[in-house]
Amino acid sequence: MESEFDLIAALVERLPPPGGQVRVGSGDDAAVTEPRAGASATTVDAIVEGVHFTLPEFPLRAVGRKALAASLSDLAAMGAEPGEAYVALGVPDGLGHTDLIELADGLAEVAEREGVSVVGGDVTRAPALSLAVTCIGHEPDGAGFVTRSGARPGDVVAVTGELGGAAAALKLLTNPASSASRPGVGAELDADVRERLLARQLDPRPRLEAGRALARHGATAMIDVSDGVGADAGHLARASGVRVEIEAGRLPLAAGAAEVAGGEDGAVALALSGGEDFELLLALPADRLEESRAGLDAPYGLTEIGRITEGEGIVVLARDGRELEPGGFDHMRGSGAGSS
Amino acid sequence: MESEFDLIAALVERLPPPGGQVRVGSGDDAAVTEPRAGASATTVDAIVEGVHFTLPEFPLRAVGRKALAASLSDLAAMGAEPGEAYVALGVPDGLGHTDLIELADGLAEVAEREGVSVVGGDVTRAPALSLAVTCIGHEPDGAGFVTRSGARPGDVVAVTGELGGAAAALKLLTNPASSASRPGVGAELDADVRERLLARQLDPRPRLEAGRALARHGATAMIDVSDGVGADAGHLARASGVRVEIEAGRLPLAAGAAEVAGGEDGAVALALSGGEDFELLLALPADRLEESRAGLDAPYGLTEIGRITEGEGIVVLARDGRELEPGGFDHMRGSGAGSS
Repeated sequence: MESEFDLIAALVERLPPPGGQVRVGSGDDAAVTEPRAGASATTVDAIVEGVHFTLPEFPLRAVGRKALAASLSDLAAMGAEPGEAYVALGVPDGLGHTDLIELADGLAEVAEREGVSVVGGDVTRAPALSLAVTCIGHEPDGAGFVTRSGARPGDVVAVTGELGGAAAALKLLTNPASSASRPGVGAELDADVRERLLARQLDPRPRLEAGRALARHGATAMIDVSDGVGADAGHLARASGVRVEIEAGRLPLAAGAAEVAGGEDGAVALALSGGEDFELLLALPADRLEESRAGLDAPYGLTEIGRITEGEGIVVLARDGRELEPGGFDHMRGSGAGSS
Repeated sequence: MESEFDLIAALVERLPPPGGQVRVGSGDDAAVTEPRAGASATTVDAIVEGVHFTLPEFPLRAVGRKALAASLSDLAAMGAEPGEAYVALGVPDGLGHTDLIELADGLAEVAEREGVSVVGGDVTRAPALSLAVTCIGHEPDGAGFVTRSGARPGDVVAVTGELGGAAAALKLLTNPASSASRPGVGAELDADVRERLLARQLDPRPRLEAGRALARHGATAMIDVSDGVGADAGHLARASGVRVEIEAGRLPLAAGAAEVAGGEDGAVALALSGGEDFELLLALPADRLEESRAGLDAPYGLTEIGRITEGEGIVVLARDGRELEPGGFDHMRGSGAGSS
């Protein structure tokens, strides 16, 4: 195996040049960035082989994309402008130079698209491929950040985009391919729908612009949907000291999720507890909903899915009034607690 | 296993309360910190079971201490004031709640002593225990940071404290205990000396105060000794575009290192290529050496070990004028390249 130092130099070469705020980039003891006029938002998010992705089902470029996108998604949920990213990379023995270049290309693709400078990192041997990505974001001019804790009774609850797609995509990726005698999961899907579902795992998009727009338009609390909308609504309820009521029938299900999950109930379960959709779940005053929707770019819809009331916890109501189990992905248990 | 969310709450409870610069701490999508008057220095450093420490030889509290200290050591080498730390924790199946509390207590001990706020993190399952720690530091009032790239021909090369102790300690920790019939490595060491050696692995001290003092007193380039002083001098030479000459006979060897390494030549090899001493290696104008030495607190010595000349690379001269192999710990190869 080549040396750590040559490898790092080769990886850094694949990344886009750092932004003007970076005085000292990769290659010193620490990166140096300019003073900031506003507050900073900082998050770290790790993905580990066997927990958040599997090889070879995930191309390495997709692993790189997912690692940076997942961390940026936390910044999106604050309404932050992305600044810099730092990557701690754990490399198992089986991966060579070409593999790691592929991984770096995935990081570079997202860094370039989202305007974040990858300016530091650490590479070490590890028993499984892992990427811990720290992202630092900035407060847009005087806009402030949106936390999880500002939801108030009377607010509506809304979500961007579609849900359940990432969990459905995982089923497509990890189930054996179809054969003539035994059709695989989702074999009946349109090629287009299938492609869009797979992209939820292989090229997830952090909702950075939407997050900033929703912050401007009065979101009172916001969180990214990484554990499943049920669990994430629970986090928001706890932080805000309120109760979140979600109507299952209003959840915007990803096209194709029902086919993969064997019906609409299955798709609702994927949305509630599958996780990794990286959409934004938010509370906002009812009279700001239309304005907020209009403020979003076309590809991101904004769907009202429930309301904030006095109380605590989260309740998910089925069409018939039954309460559903909210579930949620648990990174320690490695499964959706309510997804069985 | 308990849930991720309960576990995180239990870990956060062990940490010291965050500093006044922290507006939003653990528990939201990202931590929020106040704007900064000066520039920021940011670094990430990961330690992985089996690469940077072994279980059960390292108590978990020591693993927590080492993870944060190693990352802070990078800030020390910039002359930075430590601010906040973010911890991505990978937890293997065998570790339970009590183990992780011990680990958090180690992080807390160093956070409290060094004045850093641990305000964010991520916990996930992983095949081996790993901690990737991102540290953010601040520029002390108008002092600027010291990079690796400012060394100039004519500067002297100096190092804080003692070298080779961490590598010697690793030999003590990982070699079978002595018995009546077969004395273990370093069996003849004084209890005191042994204790101080072991602390180089189990309680390493980032040289934060020394780093800031040396920055004030005119260090032109600085790096922390994490790969062995040979390799780290090579990094400094490359970044500065100069040649580093080190006299092996002047290296300040840790007390007891020679006994563990079977002689002074062995101790020199540990200093050059063993790594993880977390001292500071620096270049500075010759006429600033005495002033710099006086500016350091008593426990940190400052030893002149060589000089900067025109040219490139690093040369280590033995007492008899022979050139020694500088070596250095390679985190991808997992061994000192020159330590065999």
